[in-house]
Amino acid sequence: MKVLVLNCGSSSIKYQFFDTERQAVMAKGLVDRIGMAGAVLSQKREDGDDVRIAGEILDHTAAIQYVLGMLLSENHGVIKDKSEIQAVGHRVVHGGETFSGSVLIDDRVLKALYDNIELAPLHNPPNIKGIEAVKNSMPDVPQVAVFDTSFHAKMPEKAYLYGIPYELYRRHKIRRYGFHGTSHRYVSERAAEKFGKDISELKIVTCHLGNGASIAAVDRGVSADTTMGFTPLEGLLMGTRCGDMDPSVVTYVMGKEGLTLAEMNTMMNKHSGLTGVSGESSDMREIEEAAAGGNKRAQAAFDLFCYRIRKYVGAYAAAMGGMDALVFTGGIGENSPAVRKAVCWNMEFLGIEFNEKKNEEGADVVSTESSRVKVYRISTNEELVIALDTMEIVGDK
Amino acid sequence: MKVLVLNCGSSSIKYQFFDTERQAVMAKGLVDRIGMAGAVLSQKREDGDDVRIAGEILDHTAAIQYVLGMLLSENHGVIKDKSEIQAVGHRVVHGGETFSGSVLIDDRVLKALYDNIELAPLHNPPNIKGIEAVKNSMPDVPQVAVFDTSFHAKMPEKAYLYGIPYELYRRHKIRRYGFHGTSHRYVSERAAEKFGKDISELKIVTCHLGNGASIAAVDRGVSADTTMGFTPLEGLLMGTRCGDMDPSVVTYVMGKEGLTLAEMNTMMNKHSGLTGVSGESSDMREIEEAAAGGNKRAQAAFDLFCYRIRKYVGAYAAAMGGMDALVFTGGIGENSPAVRKAVCWNMEFLGIEFNEKKNEEGADVVSTESSRVKVYRISTNEELVIALDTMEIVGDK
Repeated sequence: MKVLVLNCGSSSIKYQFFDTERQAVMAKGLVDRIGMAGAVLSQKREDGDDVRIAGEILDHTAAIQYVLGMLLSENHGVIKDKSEIQAVGHRVVHGGETFSGSVLIDDRVLKALYDNIELAPLHNPPNIKGIEAVKNSMPDVPQVAVFDTSFHAKMPEKAYLYGIPYELYRRHKIRRYGFHGTSHRYVSERAAEKFGKDISELKIVTCHLGNGASIAAVDRGVSADTTMGFTPLEGLLMGTRCGDMDPSVVTYVMGKEGLTLAEMNTMMNKHSGLTGVSGESSDMREIEEAAAGGNKRAQAAFDLFCYRIRKYVGAYAAAMGGMDALVFTGGIGENSPAVRKAVCWNMEFLGIEFNEKKNEEGADVVSTESSRVKVYRISTNEELVIALDTMEIVGDK
Repeated sequence: MKVLVLNCGSSSIKYQFFDTERQAVMAKGLVDRIGMAGAVLSQKREDGDDVRIAGEILDHTAAIQYVLGMLLSENHGVIKDKSEIQAVGHRVVHGGETFSGSVLIDDRVLKALYDNIELAPLHNPPNIKGIEAVKNSMPDVPQVAVFDTSFHAKMPEKAYLYGIPYELYRRHKIRRYGFHGTSHRYVSERAAEKFGKDISELKIVTCHLGNGASIAAVDRGVSADTTMGFTPLEGLLMGTRCGDMDPSVVTYVMGKEGLTLAEMNTMMNKHSGLTGVSGESSDMREIEEAAAGGNKRAQAAFDLFCYRIRKYVGAYAAAMGGMDALVFTGGIGENSPAVRKAVCWNMEFLGIEFNEKKNEEGADVVSTESSRVKVYRISTNEELVIALDTMEIVGDK
């Protein structure tokens, strides 16, 4: 089946056009600066063809038209007729408590997505715009929503409830949802394959470490806990997000600095994390460079980042009563030997025997042969999961 | 040496009068409802003598006079002359970054305590009132401050920094301080004795579980991390405190419910935790009873309470690269077999072999003989630590 996978942001659309039989990406591209001056579409085709065009792309519907035009283009396209697009799969950030799995989008689902906007005011609206735009351009093509939250939907109550009055959970749905679910699901499945056991027999801790970062405890195939919470702010130190913090700090800082709710949210989401602690950069590569050059605050940011991961690995092993595999994925997880080393060093008590040489080389397995807990480096592929889920659901119709 | 140990709250003073040579409490008592109608002083003497008197006790100075009168009383007293009180030791909640150990109180120290009020606006002012009251009543008696925070003063930066802009740490001293330090220190020392090794060779996780609750990672005698943070709100679920939570929840709830900073703080500190989740009680005994009777929200509160402890035990083992002993103390830690069981169950991967029978009996050691990690039930004694620190510091003069 040919599936178009879309990840729609407020001013950009990322797309991949899949041939699911071959699990191949026939073309992938990005429409950037939607609604702004200098909007641009860039695409790479499976055969290496590379193209970049500028245009006036005022909204998501126009952007989808550009994408269709490109996929159909004589010189750079991959299909001859629009009808070859058999389904569209969307990454949708927040499924709330409504969706515990991927779904075919109909009017009822669309309404539920609108209802969940309040839970993800930054992310869900552009996801919905993308869905509406496809509806306008290809009214007959089935669309599927794949949620960042749904892999975590089976978390037990003890993992998702906060300690505030229960009434606030009932009234406003304030609870842990977790994000990056598609990635945690994908890499835990790959880890089980590498391990050579069915995932239903394994306890896996998956670390998705990118500019946003989260960890999940995947207990026999089910996400039993994860570090991101009500929003993607909780948990690890991230590029610009603070992660875990005494809730009193929020009210204290607001009082001391005279910040509004919106200003405080901006501070915690945009000016904190690696950026806030180091004062240098949100990019781990630059943090590592600065730390190597003797920059103490960059070193502090690096240490904080790794220490929190380390603690969560231990916490999730305790949550599951042990662990069989540890997975690193995402830009930092896949590419920083220093981070992996800081997390895995001196973790023999957990059954981790770390292989420094393999780690430096960026091998797929960075634990020793005899290590009871296997440590994997796995490239995530959320788009593939979306394509396969879409195929499965559309095929099931 | 005879040492009077004081724990001064806003409307109460708890005291214990120690003979440090015998490590014995000659008398202990409580002045309650200071400044209110129906103020009362109750005392128990070492020999069982029990007394309770009502009086008009308008302030802390009057309360100290009542305590002195009682200690000197012909029928209920323990000393003949005020001069037998050789030193006074105070529990002081917050030492900020100024105090990394107990100190003799002089004008400079007193000024620093005043300077730290902002960090502990509820707790430090009554502590200071107690110090001033003793100064008024017994100007020549040396006084020592023993801080809840100082045992945690050697935490590494990666454990005490938050992920917010570094400038906020510099400007407002916003960082993890940790509390219950005197208790964590006491029980970790007792655990090392029971273990039969020097504390400098041991990795110990101490769980102080009372109405307030915290855990510490005591790495070779030094607190390497602890769950309470900038304030005592962070970390575990407590009687009425929410503990860990996505910082976004604070701003979201304030916005949704139209709460002021003070109202939000009250909600998180007074109406959350076991109370907030169960809607029943802040008392673990009542929660356990209600859960046993089929109350689902009480069960959820119990599960949440234990699950967080469990995760921190794993996290701190990871922080230290393993653990040798786990300690339960405080009202819940010492008296709830169900909590200890929920924490220790299925933790063999950490080296814990739990002894259910010993646990039910409330034995001092609740792990099996062959358990690599020893699990202890230890009664805390913060007052004794304060008495001994006071003796040592005053003797050192």
